[in-house]
Amino acid sequence: MPPYNFSAGPAALPKAVLEEAKTGLTDWRGCGQSVMEIPFTGPEFKSILDDATSSLKELLTIPDDYHVLMIQGGAYGQFSFMPMNLLRGHDSADYAVTGHWSKRAADEARKYCKVNIVTDGSAANFTDIENPDKWRFDPHAAYCHLTTNETANGLQLPHLPDSGDVPLVADVTSDLLTAPLDVSKFGTLYASAQKNMGIAGLTIVIVRDDLAGQALSTTPAVFDYGRLAANTSKVNTPPTWAVYISGLVFKWVLSQGGLAEMARRNRAKAKALYDVIDAGNFYRCPVASRVRSSVNVCFGLPTEELEKQFLSEAAENGLLYLQGHSAAGAIRASLYNAVEQDAVNALTQFMTDFADREVGK
Amino acid sequence: MPPYNFSAGPAALPKAVLEEAKTGLTDWRGCGQSVMEIPFTGPEFKSILDDATSSLKELLTIPDDYHVLMIQGGAYGQFSFMPMNLLRGHDSADYAVTGHWSKRAADEARKYCKVNIVTDGSAANFTDIENPDKWRFDPHAAYCHLTTNETANGLQLPHLPDSGDVPLVADVTSDLLTAPLDVSKFGTLYASAQKNMGIAGLTIVIVRDDLAGQALSTTPAVFDYGRLAANTSKVNTPPTWAVYISGLVFKWVLSQGGLAEMARRNRAKAKALYDVIDAGNFYRCPVASRVRSSVNVCFGLPTEELEKQFLSEAAENGLLYLQGHSAAGAIRASLYNAVEQDAVNALTQFMTDFADREVGK
Repeated sequence: MPPYNFSAGPAALPKAVLEEAKTGLTDWRGCGQSVMEIPFTGPEFKSILDDATSSLKELLTIPDDYHVLMIQGGAYGQFSFMPMNLLRGHDSADYAVTGHWSKRAADEARKYCKVNIVTDGSAANFTDIENPDKWRFDPHAAYCHLTTNETANGLQLPHLPDSGDVPLVADVTSDLLTAPLDVSKFGTLYASAQKNMGIAGLTIVIVRDDLAGQALSTTPAVFDYGRLAANTSKVNTPPTWAVYISGLVFKWVLSQGGLAEMARRNRAKAKALYDVIDAGNFYRCPVASRVRSSVNVCFGLPTEELEKQFLSEAAENGLLYLQGHSAAGAIRASLYNAVEQDAVNALTQFMTDFADREVGK
Repeated sequence: MPPYNFSAGPAALPKAVLEEAKTGLTDWRGCGQSVMEIPFTGPEFKSILDDATSSLKELLTIPDDYHVLMIQGGAYGQFSFMPMNLLRGHDSADYAVTGHWSKRAADEARKYCKVNIVTDGSAANFTDIENPDKWRFDPHAAYCHLTTNETANGLQLPHLPDSGDVPLVADVTSDLLTAPLDVSKFGTLYASAQKNMGIAGLTIVIVRDDLAGQALSTTPAVFDYGRLAANTSKVNTPPTWAVYISGLVFKWVLSQGGLAEMARRNRAKAKALYDVIDAGNFYRCPVASRVRSSVNVCFGLPTEELEKQFLSEAAENGLLYLQGHSAAGAIRASLYNAVEQDAVNALTQFMTDFADREVGK
């Protein structure tokens, strides 16, 4: 039933999570307090944090030598804290520039070190990604940073590169938990929660033990991975409500069948949408088929005027937040885990009807 | 009615705020979406952010040449971002060390500049504050940092110092909105929201225009006051739900009569508690009367065993989260705005009964 939420983030949450959050809002587990009122130092929040962490570990089969940190500042904050924590005496880092967000990550890293660009899709306006096997790595880099899914451009990395002994570091903000992922291939992963994992204000960092605890001396204490790991994310007050919501989301994903099932659903949703886009000449997706995102589907219409009309009529029909990022076409439908097949069916039906009407004019 | 929440933070929220948040949780203003699901770039969140900002400006009569920033990272995060933003070519800053938290702020600042301690209460175990008129300022300091209320130690600054041309910068985390405050006396104010203003995950920074926009080149973009001011706090995704809750809290404070009324209530609550503490020799507050906090009331009992028994029986009676910080006695009652006189009455009655029983043994 409409409205259907296609926002790129903050985004739709599972209905079952919103339903359970009602009790957490006013009377968590019969304690007479809201989760939002509970001190972060006591046993109640400890159980919330421990539950969320163990659910995430179960979902991703996170190996024992990794720490799960739940902190503030967003993925964009990590664009700074990643080099501050991971340079470890090196003076440079590798960055793959495959879209709007990885370019920002590389730009921010230049404040702290030399940046070696291993691949750069900007000349092609980020409509394709060079084969990762051909990227130009620096064997002396502290780490190699990549963005598995480019939220603004609608691109997804086809496969991981082999960076040798240089640890892979990935911004997985928009596709973590949308499909299985082998954590052991990465030195560090990070993601804002407000796409597939919860709400704005929480950032998850998964860091291998040998990479934590070597931060630059100028790293803010509350963003020092070593201190965060030693204090189970409680160097200062964590965003307790956001941690609670993420715990509910993790449990919901588990209850639905885990990441393999999420991947199956997400493939079906994305295919339905791309099929409509590719069915005629009315809609166009500028992204090369091989690297099209299964999460953020970006497309345009023949004219800017038609795009405005499309967005306006879509909203009237309860198809919300489809305004795209200017980098890759004017329309973007984000198909995170909580966006159900029903919503996609309503959107594809609307798209087909809209195109038929306009082409028939 | 119990339970009564005396937590130091996250802390009690006004019941009216929790009641209104129920609709925001699932169907904000009839839009069919949760506030947590709404994109931060659209008109809905703009109205939430604008409303919260204008309510806070009204409450504090914030002058027009100040920016209100709503960001992440906590006040502890600002211990780092304050020097990063405010050094402005200076190589040192003044710090007043009046308790646990101001000492941490000074320690963190040493990562970025020389720190001149203008007063230091550590020798007296933070039971008193030297008269601010006698503090030893450095006229070349970038700013003078102070903590208006020491949450852990139960101390409150009796009056502001005159630091000449050096801007005053204050951590007002635990007493902002508990009483009127003249913002124009400060260059910058900052506070975590989870005491008197909302929930964990939101930090309010109020910065005078001439002090924003001169951050060190190594300042993370999302914590650069100049960029935050230019983008109305939306350099990256703000903690949207936490901003929403703070907006509700600000409106609640206005509806109750504003800061003068909050001050009247808080004085009455604190007086009731200190009166019981001072009535006999059973309870003791180590803090000098002149600087006792009206917000965090710290006290001890004759023995550690009695303190444990007190905490245990208090919890059984629905008087929750009274465990204190080790720095200033084993018991701490935090009396933030949302803690009602009823809760204090229940606590003072319990304290009187407990003392009578133990003294009579």
